Amino acid sequence: MAPKALILIAQGTEEMEFTITYDVLVRGGIEVQSAFVGSSASAQNSQDPHGSEYVTCSRGVKIVPDLRLPDLAGGKALEEYDAIIVPGGVKGAETISQNDDVAKLLSAFAAKGKVVAAICAGSLAIKSAGIGKDNAITSHPSVKAELEKDYHYKDDRVVIADKLITSRGPGTAFEFALAIVEALAGKEKRVEITDPIILHPAQIQHDQE
Amino acid sequence: MAPKALILIAQGTEEMEFTITYDVLVRGGIEVQSAFVGSSASAQNSQDPHGSEYVTCSRGVKIVPDLRLPDLAGGKALEEYDAIIVPGGVKGAETISQNDDVAKLLSAFAAKGKVVAAICAGSLAIKSAGIGKDNAITSHPSVKAELEKDYHYKDDRVVIADKLITSRGPGTAFEFALAIVEALAGKEKRVEITDPIILHPAQIQHDQE
Repeated sequence: MAPKALILIAQGTEEMEFTITYDVLVRGGIEVQSAFVGSSASAQNSQDPHGSEYVTCSRGVKIVPDLRLPDLAGGKALEEYDAIIVPGGVKGAETISQNDDVAKLLSAFAAKGKVVAAICAGSLAIKSAGIGKDNAITSHPSVKAELEKDYHYKDDRVVIADKLITSRGPGTAFEFALAIVEALAGKEKRVEITDPIILHPAQIQHDQE
Repeated sequence: MAPKALILIAQGTEEMEFTITYDVLVRGGIEVQSAFVGSSASAQNSQDPHGSEYVTCSRGVKIVPDLRLPDLAGGKALEEYDAIIVPGGVKGAETISQNDDVAKLLSAFAAKGKVVAAICAGSLAIKSAGIGKDNAITSHPSVKAELEKDYHYKDDRVVIADKLITSRGPGTAFEFALAIVEALAGKEKRVEITDPIILHPAQIQHDQE
């Protein structure tokens, strides 16, 4: 059975980080679903003229989520998914990192030894969930100050601390997503999908060759 | 007034190429709108349970377009926009490059000396529109054979031939989008927005420093 990953999305999520991660994971043979995080009030504001709900991302791209967080209540998320992923975008990451259900979900995933991944300001949700303390972590430089007291903060493009995978911003999202593919589907799969994406040679791990 | 860009989208468009281009242009101070290309039959198939129309991209990300191509009939597109952009994704690029209205639009933009840009299989639309013949061009390697007879084909990550800007795939989309920002908003703007994106240093133009 294919590994499954859940990626969170909220009003103001960084659309490049969301989309690159979602797409690269699907290329890696992983079943991906997105879950909307937000109050029903904010969902109301996002209705389009035809009555459907979508997220307006940080630079205006409008994305329709696959699920809503309440659809996964009662331990469903933990049963079904092998990884949970938090994208950045200042406003989106704020909503996600201040949501209690997300905090519980992240700490349950971490406790079960499942992959927990965050990029950019999304790393703030790791801290809110109180997980991975003293582990190596990274984030967008703009929120470094909020993380460096509680974590072993690194300025690397992707930081892997066992099952905790963090990264810096839109420009590091390909490397972030490929690290998640490797964690869930193995290094061979990572190598297999890298070529058609046409990454810059400098972004390709040397141990792939 | 801010420069304006129109980016096309169809069922099966590559969501990373679409989203990276859209987002980076907005970061560059460019007003961006997306226009759906397709038959009404295909739009029908994309209705979500709530009745709204969205595009299902190549790896399943669902995006709500800002406009539909017929909204821009009667020369509106040419009046309003300074650039037109075609993303890839095999199915999306097929739909876009086989659409007569798109071909007319692309050749009108080219005739007016406006920016025409395409990435990945999107470069096929350049050929369908019959523009830029004998100019330098690139595309995803998978469609190189369909282009190299009519164009001076290059394997570079981004190829700029006056106002015709082409590129190769999702992994080259940041460089592609930054080249469009430079063409529409100048080199200073390009440099200004590059840092927070956290590109790999090897992806940053040396002449920026």
